[in-house]
Amino acid sequence: MKILVINCGSATVKFRLFQTQGQDELISLAGGIVSGLGKEDAQMSYHIPDFRFEQQLNRPGYREAIEAAIQCLTNPKYGVVRDVSEIDAAGHRTVHGGDKFTHSVLVDRDVITKMEQCSHLAPLHNPANLAGINQAMALLPKTPQVAVFDTAFHQTIPLHASLYAMPFEMYETHGIRKYGFHGTSCQYIVHRASQLLHQPVEKIRMVICHLGNGVSVTAVKNGHSVENSLGFTSLEGAIMGTRCGALDPGVILYLMTELNFSAEQVYTMLYTKSGLLGISGVSNDMRTITDLAEEGNPRCRLAIEMFAYRLKKYIGSYIAVMGGIDLLVFTGGIGENSPIVRSLAVKDLGFLGIEIDPELNDKALAVESLIHRKPCPVTVAVIPTNEEWMIAKETLEVLAARDRKNAIEKGGEIVKEMNS
Amino acid sequence: MKILVINCGSATVKFRLFQTQGQDELISLAGGIVSGLGKEDAQMSYHIPDFRFEQQLNRPGYREAIEAAIQCLTNPKYGVVRDVSEIDAAGHRTVHGGDKFTHSVLVDRDVITKMEQCSHLAPLHNPANLAGINQAMALLPKTPQVAVFDTAFHQTIPLHASLYAMPFEMYETHGIRKYGFHGTSCQYIVHRASQLLHQPVEKIRMVICHLGNGVSVTAVKNGHSVENSLGFTSLEGAIMGTRCGALDPGVILYLMTELNFSAEQVYTMLYTKSGLLGISGVSNDMRTITDLAEEGNPRCRLAIEMFAYRLKKYIGSYIAVMGGIDLLVFTGGIGENSPIVRSLAVKDLGFLGIEIDPELNDKALAVESLIHRKPCPVTVAVIPTNEEWMIAKETLEVLAARDRKNAIEKGGEIVKEMNS
Repeated sequence: MKILVINCGSATVKFRLFQTQGQDELISLAGGIVSGLGKEDAQMSYHIPDFRFEQQLNRPGYREAIEAAIQCLTNPKYGVVRDVSEIDAAGHRTVHGGDKFTHSVLVDRDVITKMEQCSHLAPLHNPANLAGINQAMALLPKTPQVAVFDTAFHQTIPLHASLYAMPFEMYETHGIRKYGFHGTSCQYIVHRASQLLHQPVEKIRMVICHLGNGVSVTAVKNGHSVENSLGFTSLEGAIMGTRCGALDPGVILYLMTELNFSAEQVYTMLYTKSGLLGISGVSNDMRTITDLAEEGNPRCRLAIEMFAYRLKKYIGSYIAVMGGIDLLVFTGGIGENSPIVRSLAVKDLGFLGIEIDPELNDKALAVESLIHRKPCPVTVAVIPTNEEWMIAKETLEVLAARDRKNAIEKGGEIVKEMNS
Repeated sequence: MKILVINCGSATVKFRLFQTQGQDELISLAGGIVSGLGKEDAQMSYHIPDFRFEQQLNRPGYREAIEAAIQCLTNPKYGVVRDVSEIDAAGHRTVHGGDKFTHSVLVDRDVITKMEQCSHLAPLHNPANLAGINQAMALLPKTPQVAVFDTAFHQTIPLHASLYAMPFEMYETHGIRKYGFHGTSCQYIVHRASQLLHQPVEKIRMVICHLGNGVSVTAVKNGHSVENSLGFTSLEGAIMGTRCGALDPGVILYLMTELNFSAEQVYTMLYTKSGLLGISGVSNDMRTITDLAEEGNPRCRLAIEMFAYRLKKYIGSYIAVMGGIDLLVFTGGIGENSPIVRSLAVKDLGFLGIEIDPELNDKALAVESLIHRKPCPVTVAVIPTNEEWMIAKETLEVLAARDRKNAIEKGGEIVKEMNS
């Protein structure tokens, strides 16, 4: 089977075609990205093993971007399928499923309506995801479409951990609570960790540090998410590239009442001028910051210290929540590539059985590696995440569940006919 | 020596007169409170051992309240001093010392100016504290006045722990960072803990849960505060009676941009309608909530669970920050009186060496007690706090330091005279 994974952001469309192989394997055949949606000089980049194709697109919308992707995938020269009928299903990354979706689902009218009802919870992301689904349904009308939600994995976080201490009607009436994000990434890590440790997920209490441009820490117990540092929005929690993460709510009120900030100014500052960029004053990119810190820049040093210190607090907190830990995972661009962040985040956690081997840590750059000192009770791993793989896998499982259901119904009908 | 401790809040003036005894002891001679400042039916309540005196006051200001206190203390029938000349010093509780005060100080013109400069950081508290100091100076012009800051003890929190991940100029220009509060209470607990454990403070890594109407968690290492859950304002951190504590900053922006809240409405909701009151919907008082939870009220149960769960997360986090823990302290009205909160807050922390003995826990009601299961590596203690005692003690130390300095200067002058 061939599964097309589509990830529509506010300015980009990413895509990747997978093919099933054997029991559990999914092979990537081709992938690409359209960036600069709506712009005159939008770029399409497509690649298969040993070949890359680039193309300029003029003001593409989601439709044109997905069309361009399909044209590449079906191109006689560098395509990987003869025509779209070979694509068995499309899986869509979807950011916010609110309270409505605890699992990936086959898209139908009802699902789209429910997704629209969640859009106010992720006004930047959900409309883009929906546009992608709608356009893919128009372009591939016979292909089943599956929505995979970034919040679904975190629906197991218990109420006492997901509610804010506000008037209860803020939750009941307005749905304001922690939803958590990066769920698809976490789901991949949990799957992979189980293989890596040769243990069922039920035996692995893990903390996952997903450190990309967005940053989250997740606690997973019995295979289920029990905590995530992102919240109702993607502004909460750990320090991010340009986002502040946890902040005294009184600071926002102070900015508005004493320093005359408008809500919009606060929004812009906390989403786009804070985090690593705000502290360092020079960059939101951990590589640049690390280089400058090594050259002696004190604000860059401070940015790294604060970033790692905040992670350590979450790690300690989530270990307490789970009553212990077996596995600590670093993933995402920074998690996979920054030995200094990993080493600072676990500094002095030896009393919890967490110790990193400096040599293994330094060597672990964007490759799956175990980096703890041996013998140590807690495994520390670098695991490159693969959300697209996970979306393809989820899509397959939704289809398999549909087929099982159909078979049972068909069986039921046959029995009914026989009995009548 | 006799020390008058004065605590001016926005609507109350509390006072207590202490007398030194021997090396380290401070005996309370009398105390009282004026409540309902500015109101027609304001109440003065004064007490000495075995005697209580109540009086109605008509629209008292800070001056009238302190005057009434002095009248009681010097009253021929139930007073404890003949006249004010017997009062050797006054110590004032002061909420916010900003970056300017790392220790208690003898009040002079310069100190008052600096305190005025900090007032915007605590607009509800500092002006009241200042009014109290000014009136006490007018009424007791010959008596040295000492300011004891609630933030001073937390000035040792390192920069990487006290900064928010915002543009750096928010700190440099506007002083926005975590200051922490409940410092005077913590200082008392640290002092008392050292006596209780017969160990120097340097050997006790402790987490202090101060659970009153305001709630804070503090990490103390080598006798110094290294973390506190309150922040720039008293809205951050743990769940409080009516305050929300930690909250996704994105929620505030959502309330304002999507639900059309004004900054004032957000302020009122987060300061006065959230916390235990907001979750339970019925009360901000842990006693009421506990009673109702026992009767089966689900929202009251949830309020207790959330309150304790948030504490557990801070405890785990701060243990990670310190690289271990020797002592966990519960103090403040709830901390001293709620076995259920204490037991839930440390549930499943046995892997950290923290375990409570249920019987000892149930018995520990407003009395100094050790409540951990023996043998357990971590001491868990209930220690009733005593901020007034601490303020008196600080006042004595500031006076002693002044006397030492004067003696040295005088000695220098004598030497100079002898040499000339």
